[in-house]
Amino acid sequence: MRGMPPTPSAQLVVMKFGGSSVATADRIRHVARRIARERARGSDLVVVVSAMGDTTDELLALAHAITDEPDPRELDLLLGTGEHQSATLVSMALHALGVDAISLTGAQAGISTDGRYGKARIADIDPRRVRGEIAAGRVVIVAGFQGIARTTTPIAGEASGADRPAGAIPSETAADVAELTTLGRGGSDTTAVALAARLGADRCQIFTDVRGIYTADPRLVPGARQLSVIGYEEMLELAYQGAQVMNVRAVELGWVDGVVIEVLSSFEDAPGTLIKEDPIVEQRNKVRGLAHDRNVAKITLVDVPDRPGVARTVFQPLADAAINVDMIVQNVGHGGSTDLSFTVPKVELAKAKRILEPIVRDLGFREMTTDSSVAKVSIIGAGIQNAPGYAARMFGALADAGVNIEMISTSEVRITTIVAEDDVETAVRALHEAFALATPDPVDAGAAEAAAS
Amino acid sequence: MRGMPPTPSAQLVVMKFGGSSVATADRIRHVARRIARERARGSDLVVVVSAMGDTTDELLALAHAITDEPDPRELDLLLGTGEHQSATLVSMALHALGVDAISLTGAQAGISTDGRYGKARIADIDPRRVRGEIAAGRVVIVAGFQGIARTTTPIAGEASGADRPAGAIPSETAADVAELTTLGRGGSDTTAVALAARLGADRCQIFTDVRGIYTADPRLVPGARQLSVIGYEEMLELAYQGAQVMNVRAVELGWVDGVVIEVLSSFEDAPGTLIKEDPIVEQRNKVRGLAHDRNVAKITLVDVPDRPGVARTVFQPLADAAINVDMIVQNVGHGGSTDLSFTVPKVELAKAKRILEPIVRDLGFREMTTDSSVAKVSIIGAGIQNAPGYAARMFGALADAGVNIEMISTSEVRITTIVAEDDVETAVRALHEAFALATPDPVDAGAAEAAAS
Repeated sequence: MRGMPPTPSAQLVVMKFGGSSVATADRIRHVARRIARERARGSDLVVVVSAMGDTTDELLALAHAITDEPDPRELDLLLGTGEHQSATLVSMALHALGVDAISLTGAQAGISTDGRYGKARIADIDPRRVRGEIAAGRVVIVAGFQGIARTTTPIAGEASGADRPAGAIPSETAADVAELTTLGRGGSDTTAVALAARLGADRCQIFTDVRGIYTADPRLVPGARQLSVIGYEEMLELAYQGAQVMNVRAVELGWVDGVVIEVLSSFEDAPGTLIKEDPIVEQRNKVRGLAHDRNVAKITLVDVPDRPGVARTVFQPLADAAINVDMIVQNVGHGGSTDLSFTVPKVELAKAKRILEPIVRDLGFREMTTDSSVAKVSIIGAGIQNAPGYAARMFGALADAGVNIEMISTSEVRITTIVAEDDVETAVRALHEAFALATPDPVDAGAAEAAAS
Repeated sequence: MRGMPPTPSAQLVVMKFGGSSVATADRIRHVARRIARERARGSDLVVVVSAMGDTTDELLALAHAITDEPDPRELDLLLGTGEHQSATLVSMALHALGVDAISLTGAQAGISTDGRYGKARIADIDPRRVRGEIAAGRVVIVAGFQGIARTTTPIAGEASGADRPAGAIPSETAADVAELTTLGRGGSDTTAVALAARLGADRCQIFTDVRGIYTADPRLVPGARQLSVIGYEEMLELAYQGAQVMNVRAVELGWVDGVVIEVLSSFEDAPGTLIKEDPIVEQRNKVRGLAHDRNVAKITLVDVPDRPGVARTVFQPLADAAINVDMIVQNVGHGGSTDLSFTVPKVELAKAKRILEPIVRDLGFREMTTDSSVAKVSIIGAGIQNAPGYAARMFGALADAGVNIEMISTSEVRITTIVAEDDVETAVRALHEAFALATPDPVDAGAAEAAAS
């Protein structure tokens, strides 16, 4: 008999450790001790791991040393090995502590996807093997960032091929084939949240190299304060607008399935930030956090004819090239033409220009100007767009700090400005001050007291 | 439509590339060009690859940095990633040359094993997917060194677990589970030969960092000559007695299934050595090659009681500890006791001594002496044991060279001596001279002429 059978009162906890948490043998042993402590409390555990440190980037570099355009299927099979490796090592480290554990690939964990290589979405989870291993008393380590897609492929019939004469072409039939697919950057967060939802876990903990979600990037704003709770929608906007702690898709999935996500540090024992449906949020009408993103470039098309179909002519080719256009601003036209501005990721600017140049020429726009030294700065809080005064306060604070606003866009829960990249730090500090984010609000104060007691 | 359909006259060739052949991105591109050339000749191709360079050793070191005794299942899942990586990279490199290709894991290639982690044997190959990909016009790259084992594991029933209340124990049933197993050192050779047998390949080529099989190690004997043909049994003894070019198990498998194996260089275009059933061999009665092995230690038990059961008392505990005892020599007893000598791998000597010390004490042997500075030197050739004069000529040549023989053992196709490790080079050179191995025999001379013409 192996391991400790779960007690009827055992809680099921999903723990996810990112690449920096498992970057070295030492850190893997540290992570194992953390898991062992949770296990000793009697919890049933499913642990999701990313690849060690920079493994994914190193494998990508290797593929690009071979060919400029690696085949997406081969690339996914290559990248998926990073998580297989870290999962086995964490399992070994648990064994060394006397904790019964087993590592599972995404396929073994029953995770299937929609089959889009490099950016697959989890389609379904068959939880039987994971549940079986838990019931057998094991901590289950799951390779994050991946799942299998069942596709059909030509399969040569055995009967015709068994005594294959040289050169005979075997007959073909279609058959199911399992292929490894990866979920894209940050995909291990998604694996953890999806497993937590499917298994009905009591908690889903995302361990990372920061203590939780902050009102602003602490590297920019020394007074940035950790939040004890944040709503799904606010977290989604924070992540989407540049906060890199949590993967956007994982937050969406948590929101849809009502999974309470805790973001916390793998290096210190401290309470983290809970991401959950927050009933107070709707009435709070308060700026909860700031996000900024330097990976932004601005493109302006000057004197664009003001007639139907022009926007499609511009944006369809960019979409076809998988360039993610973010903010789009078009002012009211004057004299039959208008200026059209939008942002793209900085790394995509050169490609976007190559695509747009012939269009600008063919359609007779006056010119295209681009600026790669801009950044996005956003304030985020549920309900702030409907509440009066937030936009005015934001723009006023930026003006007082001498920061010029180049573009503005808003959503239900955020107001985003484009400013010069050099102004990011000034802008974020000014806004942190203007919205008094260093002062705990009642929810966080209560949580902080509870944590301290 | 992708790729070129196989023509009715297409030959099926299995090509295997070892770790040094795919150690860097540059070498992978070189290997891809070699594969593309063979493809351009119209052959259908299955390519088996090992892990890049020292990847397997690096992964082993990582595992041992985590724990002294890595779990065999986890270790196999970890090590198997090395071949997944190299297979995808070779496939990408072929794509870059415009050759349609696909990489398959051992599981995807239908390779199943007997399930012994770290030393699995191939139990069966389901060739349908590989045949289907070939029929679709693709070069198939298979991750060597691995296969899957289907085992049973407790599986929690879905019905009872779907709405898992916290702490409920799901019911269990047994179900099939696929686990990755590795074939042990040199296992990719075995993968290639087994695939060639199952697919009825016309050729099985093992590409390595030497040009083929030599009469002796060319680093020791400058006049060592490459053989154009060698019989399975001779090759098996050469491999077993220390020649490291081919994996023993792969040669056995080739022998059983009648697969003609060609060993050749991946770095230069030159004819290699064919390993096959050689009808001439039986009448040849000739020394074909020399092998030496420095990984040998000698243990002598002095004044062992000469009565039934003593040998078992000594060797059973060593077998239980998986220590591979090789040569055993026991002289005729005198006065009720005898001396018992045997060899073990040098790296196992300390372990063997720990196991034997209490036995020596309990059974009242006079003493145990060990010597780790010995080596094996063998002459190999089908039929040489039955032919008169080979043993005498061997011992005479060693005596003339001043090499003292410490132990002797013989088989149908070889004579092996244990000598001082410092004498290995002298011994091998003297034997190469004594048996005129630098002079081509008719078979090899004919092949050399054919190659030169």
